[in-house]
Formats: sequence, C-alpha cells, structure tokens
Amino acid sequence: MGYVIGIDGGGSKTTYSICEVSKHTQKTFQPAATFQSKGTNPQVIGFQEMAQQIGETIKNLLNKLSIPPRDIVSVCCGLAGVGREDDEEKAALYIREKFLSIGIDRNIRLFICSDLYIALRGALNPGVKEGILVIAGTGSNAIGSTKNESVYKTGGWGHVLGDEGSGYHIALKALNKVTRSYDLRENKTLLNEMILEKLNLSSEPKLISYIYGTKPQKNEIAGLAEVVIQAADQGDHIAIQILKEASDELVQHVRSLHLMSDQFDKNTAITTAGSILTHSALIKDQFIKSITEEKLGHYQKSYATPVDGALVIAREQYEAAQSFNG
Amino acid sequence: MGYVIGIDGGGSKTTYSICEVSKHTQKTFQPAATFQSKGTNPQVIGFQEMAQQIGETIKNLLNKLSIPPRDIVSVCCGLAGVGREDDEEKAALYIREKFLSIGIDRNIRLFICSDLYIALRGALNPGVKEGILVIAGTGSNAIGSTKNESVYKTGGWGHVLGDEGSGYHIALKALNKVTRSYDLRENKTLLNEMILEKLNLSSEPKLISYIYGTKPQKNEIAGLAEVVIQAADQGDHIAIQILKEASDELVQHVRSLHLMSDQFDKNTAITTAGSILTHSALIKDQFIKSITEEKLGHYQKSYATPVDGALVIAREQYEAAQSFNG
Repeated sequence: MGYVIGIDGGGSKTTYSICEVSKHTQKTFQPAATFQSKGTNPQVIGFQEMAQQIGETIKNLLNKLSIPPRDIVSVCCGLAGVGREDDEEKAALYIREKFLSIGIDRNIRLFICSDLYIALRGALNPGVKEGILVIAGTGSNAIGSTKNESVYKTGGWGHVLGDEGSGYHIALKALNKVTRSYDLRENKTLLNEMILEKLNLSSEPKLISYIYGTKPQKNEIAGLAEVVIQAADQGDHIAIQILKEASDELVQHVRSLHLMSDQFDKNTAITTAGSILTHSALIKDQFIKSITEEKLGHYQKSYATPVDGALVIAREQYEAAQSFNG
Repeated sequence: MGYVIGIDGGGSKTTYSICEVSKHTQKTFQPAATFQSKGTNPQVIGFQEMAQQIGETIKNLLNKLSIPPRDIVSVCCGLAGVGREDDEEKAALYIREKFLSIGIDRNIRLFICSDLYIALRGALNPGVKEGILVIAGTGSNAIGSTKNESVYKTGGWGHVLGDEGSGYHIALKALNKVTRSYDLRENKTLLNEMILEKLNLSSEPKLISYIYGTKPQKNEIAGLAEVVIQAADQGDHIAIQILKEASDELVQHVRSLHLMSDQFDKNTAITTAGSILTHSALIKDQFIKSITEEKLGHYQKSYATPVDGALVIAREQYEAAQSFNG
C-alpha cells in the first residue's frame, strides 16, 4: 500500500488531499480524503510555522484515516509566497524535517512549488504538462508551462504595483470614474448611484471617509467589481469599457508569455480561474475571442482544482522514482 | 492698536502669522511675526485638540510679542480636513471657546475655511478674490472663486480614489510601467534601472517586498516622481508620456471648474502650487500652454503664501465689520 498527498497552501486556507497509489493508476484520481485548514504562506507566517502546520495537519489526517505514516510515498506542496528556487529549497528543508518527526519515511519524494504551478497542472487535462493558466481574482497573474517543462510567469505584482484586470483593479477604476464624474471631469455613469447604494453612502464625498477612515480590506474593495459587472449588464458604457480593458489586460498576460517562449502557439491550451473570469461573462467572452483571433492558443475549461494538480504531480514524482529505481 | 492673525493649518504643520492693522492698510502685509507648530487637521487629531493647540500656540505667541489678547480683532483659520460648512461651524465653536479662555475678546471676527481657500487667496494678487489655484504635490486638487465669491472645488480624493496628476499618481504609474516592461507587457523604459537604483533594489521583483513588506509612506512613494522627471529629462518616452498625462489631468481640473461656473473665462487668473508643478518644467510648460490655447484663463505666478492669504482674509473681515459698524 502506498499513498500520495497533494497540498494547496494558500494565504487564507490550505487544502490537503490524500490518495492511494494503485498499480493501475487512472487518469483521474479519487482521493481517499480531502481536508481544509488555515493558510500556510511562509512569507506571512514564517517557514517554520508553515512546516509545523502542514506536519501536524497530516499527522492528524493519517491518524483519522488509520494510514501508517510509512505508507506515504510522495508529497507535492504548492505554496503561496513560494516563487523562487531558494524559497522552495528552504520550504522543503523545514517540511522534510517535520515529516521525519511524525514518522514519514526519509526517502519519500517531496516536491515544493508555487500554488500557481499546481493550479496550472490541475487546470490542464490529465497527463498534459504544457499550457497556460490565467487567474483574475482579487489579484491577477498568469503562468505557462512548455513542452520541455520550462515555466514562465507574468503579473502577480499586487494591488499597488499592478494586478491589472483583477477585481481590485476593476473596482479602483470604477471608484475613480465615480470621483471624476462627480467633479464633472468625465461623463456621468450608472456606477455612481450603484456604488453608493452598495456601500450605503449618501453622496460621493462620503467615499473619502469610507476609504481612508474605515480602511476597508483589499478584498472588500475588490468586491465592488460585482457592481461594475451589474452596471455593464445594464448597459453602462463606462462599466463596459472598464471590463473590456480588464479583459485586454488578461490577454496581455498571454501575449507576454508568448514573448517569453516561442513554444507557445495557437495549439496551446489556455485555461482560466478566479472570481472575475467566473462572474463576468463579458470579460470571459471577450478574453476567449481575443486569444482565438490573435491565435494565442485555444480556450479550454479547467479540468480540475489546484489540489488535484498537486496530487497529479505527487504521483508523477513517485512514478518517476519507481521507473528510475526499477 | 489692533492685530489680525492668519493661520494655515496643515496636516503635518501649522503656520501662524500676526500683523498690526494700521489705519493706512497696505496692499501687502508685513507680518509682525510668523511661527510654525505641528499639524491641526481636526479630522486627524479631533476638533477639541485642534482648538486646544491653536489656542495655546497663540497664547504663547502673544505673550512672547507682549501683545495683549484684547488687541486681537480678527482671526482667519484655513484648516486641512475642513471642507464643509458644518465642519467650519464646529471648528469655529471650539476655537472661539478656547480664545475666550485665553482672554481674546468675544466679539472678534473669526473666519474658518479650508486650507485650500487661504492658499487660493494667498496666490491671487492683493484685493483680488476671483481666480483659480491648481495644486499638485503628494495629492492633487483645484479651487476656484468667482466674482460673486462662489467657491468651487475639484479633485482632492486622496491617493486611492483619485489624485491624478499628483506626485503619488505619477510615481504609481511609473512603478506600474516598470512591472509591465519587466513582464514584457510593454516596452522597456529607463525608469526600470533608475527606480531600482533610487530604491537600492537589485531587480524588479524586489519591488514587491519593498511595497508590501516595508510599506513605505505615501509621500515616500510620491518622492519617486522625481525619478520620472529625471528620466523625462533624459528623453525617456514613457516618462515623458506619464508627465504629459499628469499635466493634462491638472488641466482637466480647470476644465471642470469652467463647467461648474460660467463666471470663469479666458481672463481668469490661474495660479499653481505644489512640488510637482514646481519641479517639473515639462508639466508646468505643458499646463500653461494648454490653458492658454483652450482659453481657460491666463497663468499667473502665485503672489504670496497660504498664511498670507489667511491674513488678507482676516483683515478683510475686520474691515467689513468696521464699515458695517461705522
């Protein structure tokens, strides 16, 4: 008996999935169990605490499932905040040490990568390693992997430096349009009354104490993208323009990946994730139209989740070790 | 003997100026004394604390100059964070109460307004009440006063909601261009190496920990506008474009004021203030060219400082009361 574990370590939550490796591996996994606990971004909570949390959660999980730690053969951790090789090595060091302390074998395969990479592998069809994933949620970024397994990234600069096309960016543009139209610096838009109503404010200048006084969280502001999507549905030209620009920013990520590697072509699978691409049909349709017209790839629905991607990688790693040893 | 006091109450510092009212008032004031102390924005420190600080500073100042409190005839306070009438009334209530406690006569003229209005009056020629002042420092805004003394404002939404054309906005655009060019989403610019050098960072991704890790103050980020001005001087097209857009945003403030009142015309005096309009010849030249070509007014060098504006208003108020009484 052998088991593989996939971990999707986000900033606010971490998902664990465990699965038996049978001799006849299937295209799709049927995890024995999936479990969620708190965030494990090592840049936020530190590397030691991250390893501690992952180790303890796995210990409890194995206990509950009556799986002996010695049966674990491979683990893949996709961690938020881990983008560079030195981060990956540092994370691996701490996690392996913790694993030893809970009885997991010293010789298991342990693969650490970014949460972005497992998301890409989860989104692509089973067995496929080449393709692109574009994400637009509170932030925005894209990752692409080529035939020769080179990985390229773009975006992900955060809400101050970039994140164009994200929910936060869409909301900020809308708020700016509201201030401009109030000042008569631009044409009036439906967004004024819709945003004030959503925030329960009596007039535009109240936005000042809302933003600088109550200091709403980044994702609360990003949530206003929903109002922009509604205003666009009602035909508001400014809202439609903001969403079209957001869509083009996301296409721009794909154009960049093409500039980074000529291995991407019109046959590249392009998948998407994140609340913005899920909730705005306008952005998604526009995005698909552009990548098709510009021959940047072909749009494809995401196959599975990031934690599934981690499981796929864990199994791959195990199989590679087996064929090497065998 | 009678004295008037002008106060420029900013967020980080407050300037006090006191001046004797002689029977033969001159066009320009020669203040008896000018003094600086800490910020008095009532939205930051509270109305009571604001009044307390102003009262105590004036008490000490009068003491030092051996001026009896009974000789004060009129005071004008231009306060940051005071934009609406109810704020002005509240501030007046607290200040008058404090003044009584330090021996200033109950019947003095007390005029409370925004720091923006005293800046406008200081910038305009003595005796002139109509004109426009455009400010671009860390933030950006504009104020205009018409022949019939109606006051109009635009901008001043702060760094999240607006402040287009300000130092912060220019810096943010530059940082965004740096991230985009690093991602190959836009053409390379001189700004990349110049900004990294200024911040002593080894590569563009280090900007992420600089911005979100060290969390620099708003005015530290705004200070990067200096780098954009230098890059433009060296002919960088992206930097030049950012500055031209900033200039147009400032012209946009003037266009808005024209939409708000038809009392503004090609003869309206337009003055400017703030570090951006002082340090970027490109922005200022472009700004003057546009307002002239579009017949929005005629550019005029600022006559005096905001605290001088407060003194002018204090004297006006006193004279109005005299002519009313007399």
